[in-house]
Amino acid sequence: MHFTLAAAETLVVDALTRNRVDEANARSVARALVAAEAAGQGGHGLRRVEAYTKQAKAGKVDGFARPQLERQFPAVVRIDACHGYAYPAFDLAAAALPEIVREQGIALAAIHRSHHAGVLALTVERFADMGLVALMVANATASMAAWGGRKPVFGTNPIAFAAPIPEADPLVIDLALSRVARGKVMAARQKGVAIPADWAFDRNGQPTTDAVAALEGTMAPSGEAKGAALAMIVEFLAGALTGANFSFESSSLFDDKGSAPGLGQMLVVINPVASGGKGVAERLARLVDEISSDPGVRLPGRRGQTARRQALEHGIDVEDEVIATICEL
Amino acid sequence: MHFTLAAAETLVVDALTRNRVDEANARSVARALVAAEAAGQGGHGLRRVEAYTKQAKAGKVDGFARPQLERQFPAVVRIDACHGYAYPAFDLAAAALPEIVREQGIALAAIHRSHHAGVLALTVERFADMGLVALMVANATASMAAWGGRKPVFGTNPIAFAAPIPEADPLVIDLALSRVARGKVMAARQKGVAIPADWAFDRNGQPTTDAVAALEGTMAPSGEAKGAALAMIVEFLAGALTGANFSFESSSLFDDKGSAPGLGQMLVVINPVASGGKGVAERLARLVDEISSDPGVRLPGRRGQTARRQALEHGIDVEDEVIATICEL
Repeated sequence: MHFTLAAAETLVVDALTRNRVDEANARSVARALVAAEAAGQGGHGLRRVEAYTKQAKAGKVDGFARPQLERQFPAVVRIDACHGYAYPAFDLAAAALPEIVREQGIALAAIHRSHHAGVLALTVERFADMGLVALMVANATASMAAWGGRKPVFGTNPIAFAAPIPEADPLVIDLALSRVARGKVMAARQKGVAIPADWAFDRNGQPTTDAVAALEGTMAPSGEAKGAALAMIVEFLAGALTGANFSFESSSLFDDKGSAPGLGQMLVVINPVASGGKGVAERLARLVDEISSDPGVRLPGRRGQTARRQALEHGIDVEDEVIATICEL
Repeated sequence: MHFTLAAAETLVVDALTRNRVDEANARSVARALVAAEAAGQGGHGLRRVEAYTKQAKAGKVDGFARPQLERQFPAVVRIDACHGYAYPAFDLAAAALPEIVREQGIALAAIHRSHHAGVLALTVERFADMGLVALMVANATASMAAWGGRKPVFGTNPIAFAAPIPEADPLVIDLALSRVARGKVMAARQKGVAIPADWAFDRNGQPTTDAVAALEGTMAPSGEAKGAALAMIVEFLAGALTGANFSFESSSLFDDKGSAPGLGQMLVVINPVASGGKGVAERLARLVDEISSDPGVRLPGRRGQTARRQALEHGIDVEDEVIATICEL
């Protein structure tokens, strides 16, 4: 089915508000999920409405929560998402941080008691659109072990970055630290096919081509030991340093069982003029020019930006099955 | 030959001060190189004295430079290393940042006109020893392409992290974003042996097992496209946002030809109490406990910390050839 972005948002707002989510939170969630869908990130898009709604109904997420901001240090805000959705907390960070950053040069937002972070690219890009540089990390339900281990302790723990580029779209990088998304292993299980040996480990920490064994084990990090070490850094930043639950303490984001996930996200926002001086805009442009002058190279983030621009003009196509599920809610 | 750490430092100070480096800079460099050697990181240790000294003699590095600190925004310092060695600039950051961080909650040091960053672990650990969390990135002479490309635009662009852990050594992570160090390819060329196909690309961007072709091409990033994207983030932070030279603009750190490398480093230091509240120390300890409870897992950084403790007590062994070179200078 074909929708304008506004129509898709209305659909999501309706589904949420009928299921114990207030209007303001529903609008924030709908904006984020529809933007993810428009960017071609269906896994973080309208497919999530079902779980989000069921969790609100079951009280696993608080649809009436208002994120609370506390600023005890000039350059740091702590945001308690109060077990609501993550997006209203990101909206609060996007409203509060720019003024702090312009004054202090750098600012940090530590978000705890939070939920699914969605497409980080969309959040960091908001800061780049305001002329700022943003780094963001998030933890997530545990699916990866520390290197050499068997126990899932880290989520796929994404890292995202955005920088403003003069007379161009922001440069946006957003990557999860697992080699592939867990959804790919789930799809292989459904089809009953084998997975490549470097995607996952079984419960004994051995590489496996069996999707069932992989789902009982752990996902392989991108870049082996180094990727696992990066996931550990993210867990320290987004989990320990925000006061959030660790990935291994968090409940599932896909069902309505158990207590609130209580995940964490950290945003570090930099005023480029503070760190790089007056010539910094030219230097940002120069770096992008050099990278894109190599014929084989595609700038990260460009595909999503183009897709969103087209979606704004022409709308989006959403699978009938996804729409049917949303309409039932 | 066997040395106490103090004797090794004196040896390095002597070699540098006889070659157009002043006493204060020589001491800072000697401390860093001997600590790297003691940590088992010979590639960033006493082997570097030869190139460091020749560069001072040739004026490629300024042995009399005093790093200059400028603070125009409360939470950001810009440090101009003035084409001297990097370590005096790191010393200045380690002296200036803690007070700023305790006050502001987070602080950033942007270092430009700098030189070889050495073992980042040793720099970030200094902040963890003071109860702070530190993230550090550095660019380096270009050796990696953007993903899909052929031109070396990024250095191996390391990322380091340290956090204080109650009643334990700090947790320290330090990783370069190339799959293997370029030194391994150079060693293979010397021995005339083939390299694994996933270490490097030839000048056409194709994987190669030929060490000579690899050295004319680019190093492979750890974690393929994702590793290359992380190297890009580091280049933005350590290059563009500090006002330093980019990796692809930098001269070699191994010879005395050309102008000063002018590299960049960025340090972000966080007061854990500001972001995580009062319980944060326990949470840092809890995360380390959980990770190390998995029998197959070795905590990153522990080997280097143990080696340094042993070196402090028993001294270090340095290859005769390295000592002979230093004594000749």
